[in-house]
Amino acid sequence: MSIKNQQKEVHGKGPAVRREKNTDIKKPKTEEVSAVKVVDSSEVVKAKKEEKMYVIPLGGLDEVGKNMTLVQYRDEIIILDAGLTFPDDELLGIDLVIPDFSYIESNKNKIKGLFITHGHEDHIGGIPYLYNKIDKSVPMYGGKLTLALAKSKFDNPGFSKVLPKMKEIKGRSKIKVGKYFTVEFIKVTHSIADAYALAITTPAGVIVHTGDFKIDLTPVDGVGVDFSRLAQLGDQGVDLLLSDSTNSEVEGFTPSEKSVGEAFRQEFEKAKGRIIAASFASHIHRLQQIIDVAHQYKRKIAIDGRSMVRVFEIASKLGYLKIPEGLMVSLHEVGKLKEDKVVILCTGTQGEPLAALSRIAKDMHKHIKLRKGDTVIISATPIPGNERAVYNNINNLLKHDAEVVFRKIAGIHVSGHASKDEQKLMLNLIKPRHFMPVHGEYKMLKAHKQTAIETGVVEKKILIAVNGSKIEVTKSYAKIAGKVSAGAILVDGLGVGDIGNIVLRDRQQLGQDGVVIVVLTISKETGMILAGPDIVTRGFVYSRESEKMINEAALCIKEKLKSYEEKKITEWAALKTVTKDVASKYFYDKIQRNPVILPIIMEV
Amino acid sequence: MSIKNQQKEVHGKGPAVRREKNTDIKKPKTEEVSAVKVVDSSEVVKAKKEEKMYVIPLGGLDEVGKNMTLVQYRDEIIILDAGLTFPDDELLGIDLVIPDFSYIESNKNKIKGLFITHGHEDHIGGIPYLYNKIDKSVPMYGGKLTLALAKSKFDNPGFSKVLPKMKEIKGRSKIKVGKYFTVEFIKVTHSIADAYALAITTPAGVIVHTGDFKIDLTPVDGVGVDFSRLAQLGDQGVDLLLSDSTNSEVEGFTPSEKSVGEAFRQEFEKAKGRIIAASFASHIHRLQQIIDVAHQYKRKIAIDGRSMVRVFEIASKLGYLKIPEGLMVSLHEVGKLKEDKVVILCTGTQGEPLAALSRIAKDMHKHIKLRKGDTVIISATPIPGNERAVYNNINNLLKHDAEVVFRKIAGIHVSGHASKDEQKLMLNLIKPRHFMPVHGEYKMLKAHKQTAIETGVVEKKILIAVNGSKIEVTKSYAKIAGKVSAGAILVDGLGVGDIGNIVLRDRQQLGQDGVVIVVLTISKETGMILAGPDIVTRGFVYSRESEKMINEAALCIKEKLKSYEEKKITEWAALKTVTKDVASKYFYDKIQRNPVILPIIMEV
Repeated sequence: MSIKNQQKEVHGKGPAVRREKNTDIKKPKTEEVSAVKVVDSSEVVKAKKEEKMYVIPLGGLDEVGKNMTLVQYRDEIIILDAGLTFPDDELLGIDLVIPDFSYIESNKNKIKGLFITHGHEDHIGGIPYLYNKIDKSVPMYGGKLTLALAKSKFDNPGFSKVLPKMKEIKGRSKIKVGKYFTVEFIKVTHSIADAYALAITTPAGVIVHTGDFKIDLTPVDGVGVDFSRLAQLGDQGVDLLLSDSTNSEVEGFTPSEKSVGEAFRQEFEKAKGRIIAASFASHIHRLQQIIDVAHQYKRKIAIDGRSMVRVFEIASKLGYLKIPEGLMVSLHEVGKLKEDKVVILCTGTQGEPLAALSRIAKDMHKHIKLRKGDTVIISATPIPGNERAVYNNINNLLKHDAEVVFRKIAGIHVSGHASKDEQKLMLNLIKPRHFMPVHGEYKMLKAHKQTAIETGVVEKKILIAVNGSKIEVTKSYAKIAGKVSAGAILVDGLGVGDIGNIVLRDRQQLGQDGVVIVVLTISKETGMILAGPDIVTRGFVYSRESEKMINEAALCIKEKLKSYEEKKITEWAALKTVTKDVASKYFYDKIQRNPVILPIIMEV
Repeated sequence: MSIKNQQKEVHGKGPAVRREKNTDIKKPKTEEVSAVKVVDSSEVVKAKKEEKMYVIPLGGLDEVGKNMTLVQYRDEIIILDAGLTFPDDELLGIDLVIPDFSYIESNKNKIKGLFITHGHEDHIGGIPYLYNKIDKSVPMYGGKLTLALAKSKFDNPGFSKVLPKMKEIKGRSKIKVGKYFTVEFIKVTHSIADAYALAITTPAGVIVHTGDFKIDLTPVDGVGVDFSRLAQLGDQGVDLLLSDSTNSEVEGFTPSEKSVGEAFRQEFEKAKGRIIAASFASHIHRLQQIIDVAHQYKRKIAIDGRSMVRVFEIASKLGYLKIPEGLMVSLHEVGKLKEDKVVILCTGTQGEPLAALSRIAKDMHKHIKLRKGDTVIISATPIPGNERAVYNNINNLLKHDAEVVFRKIAGIHVSGHASKDEQKLMLNLIKPRHFMPVHGEYKMLKAHKQTAIETGVVEKKILIAVNGSKIEVTKSYAKIAGKVSAGAILVDGLGVGDIGNIVLRDRQQLGQDGVVIVVLTISKETGMILAGPDIVTRGFVYSRESEKMINEAALCIKEKLKSYEEKKITEWAALKTVTKDVASKYFYDKIQRNPVILPIIMEV
């Protein structure tokens, strides 16, 4: 469907609905009908009064990450995004976290489509796990880059080699799925190309989901926010707006991505030696600007980091990255170039221990040894929780006498998310009847709520939901009407969901104080102890003195067990319990530590 | 020694030495002598030309915390501070970290005194551990509050009940220890009362150590920086300045602590319900301001948190906290008061899991259940690394519909450390011949160096040292001339230094992927396997499927061992190795995890 046609469909609808500040205006009935008519009227299933639909967020509320939302109307469900999140420190050993798909599994046959707003991990990372649970025939919709990135996610053991059907969309593409759903993609700007908001129409009303967005008025690729379509939707009437809350605590307007290009130019102008630039791999516009500035300053670029290499491949092939001929060199060739002719573009802005920048900082990189005269540009800010790792990297980089450019103040990074004033602009465009802040920790959702109130949304028409909330949406109200099962599924290696609280608690204790194993061999016939107790420890103590302590502990256990032998107590459970108790008490009294105590009884 | 006398000693010395910008001025010889004359001339050991002394930092460089510095002249050593630091995430299970005292231990008989700048943990927390290694007769000098807090540190199992001699000092107190040392305490301001800089004079020269400081021109207790004495020292000539670098990346001038009182007043004015205020326990001035504002608004204060209770006891007894009669109530009584008559003052600004504020946030507090109308004021900013824990607390507090005041912008917290302009002022007052930034991560030391250059210190006269550097100081030069052993000693429970890299690595692996124990019983005589392999796991997997996997792994091991039996290989080492290898490979292939594999062989 061409843009022209769509515009025609939309133009000339009834007068705009004006929302007055802090006033809860009921729209006249005619307006409600006109909102539905946005969808080609011949195909519309006639809306009864007070038709209901449901919005069910499965991730992204009260957290940053694993964004996923369902919209259900009657027996049809569509899925918006399927992201992952990276574990915090408490989830020991966990590689990543995905939403709990159990509601989807038990409604498998209702799923009509997966709509992806953009290609960041927190929106696409859960997709292959999702398709392990739903039918491969469920089609997936998204921008060209988004689909290419999502496709690359399947390239891992444990995922089906048969890919789902992927359907490429453009701005204003309108997708009809099932009997009731029309989903329209509306261009927004974000820290990745091909980012869209979604307008979802069912007989019960219209929902707009912003996806992740900022309002970049001078976007690097020239493709800006589709204000006109957003405004039209607002005029026609939107029943519920779901809007990105990531930066809702930040005042003002997020600067344009273009300003970062200028900051890079200044650093390139000053730099005398090599330039090492670290960025998120998925930040195509950032990468493009670095490419452009490198080209301008006649420097060659070598890339490092697995995800950076992958994104370069995908994005340049699809035309999202425009790379002048001869610009790229391999890491091996870097050494042959003059220092002021080199840019190394790499990953590791978050201090990830194995990322290229961290290896450079710790002098553990195979090809790149930092030296005086090098300039390191860290083009990102630490995500909360990563500060320590990022600062450790910076300290290590500085020790090599490199210039390190990392302050926000240097303009070397801007956020990809809307600050308060952009959120206000979105609210002014959409003029939603009801509002629900999404994508953010509780404090961010709450701040966004406050911002919405300032733009005139009535407080009681704002919903702060949690993952699993079932939000009933009609033309006259939106409310939390129930709850489905939702939560976090932990992925460790190839294991999905096989790790729960007990394993995590054990890992916590093992990591804190280690493990003490007490082994006994007892006779099957007599119940007498034939060997042991032998004690083996790991992660507990390590010193010459501890040998004595371990022997003493074994002695204490032995004596206690002897008294059990005398009393003819031979049940394993009793022996294990007493062994554990004696050892626990002994070590706590002696050294105030609480290792995991594991009594093992062998019978021969 | 009274202040008057000291002033007399100092006044009327030769003309001030003017340092010109970026010029390395050699002072005339007469000046050098006058600098020494600060010490009562009758007792001065005549300085030979180019006498040397040594500054040896044992902690506080390239890190924030465990501050400790030695100054050595001939066979005499004095110690400045003995702090601890709290472990970062990588030091699993470690409670705290202290400096490596081995250089002190091997020079025990040279130690003449311990001089403490102020009573924060990172300056006093290592003291009881230090006195486990040095003679109790070494006297300890510090302000009244500092000594009281240091004394309370000994109240723990593992420390001697016999306390060292504690000698109280005041501003301008001059302490002579040994044959050569004179140490003068000079008042500075900081986020705790009784904070001092130190001027150390030996025949080899004069060193000034700022301790931790800010320049508060309107201090809460009215006791400001002793500019006059600092300026006099500067005029007389200081050979080396060691200065606090904590805030050396922060532009401008740190606001006065008094401004926080005003911010509290505004919050108290607005608050309709209870106020819960969280602060560092040691921040006496902050506590005093909260007391004053509570009194003004006719609210009662209940305190919570072990360290808060301890500081209230100590500081009020010594007169550092002035508490109006009838102001304090117990936590039990709070329920009987009207909501707008209550302040709960507690710990937990850093999200420490067991602190009062965290328990309140998680609804796990015995006495305090948060509710709508409550105002929570978090009067601190997160220390790098604590962000996630602090934000989690804030999210949880907000969920109870409490007002949460936490932004720096609200003026509800100011730093206790000098920003760039205060550092410049200190450099202008002291006009040091040589400069060494201390107390900070590498990036902070480096920023402080840059600031010093801006004030006119010549770059080559600025030293960036590491813990263990042996810095030779004379009247004409200061240089890093060697190295002593230095590092971090880990304290876990009652164990000091019994945990090293191997134990930590094991803890890391245990915490990440858990432990798999494989037990065999073999016959002493035949070497045949009598029982097993049995597999026990902890922190590894937990699900119905995993039972099958574990059995399969045991089977694989058994088969491999059978082939060993057939080949008559019975050495334990060989059996253990093959067991480990088979299990490791099996689990990695199956599930991509790397648990600690512990083969245990029992012989009967």
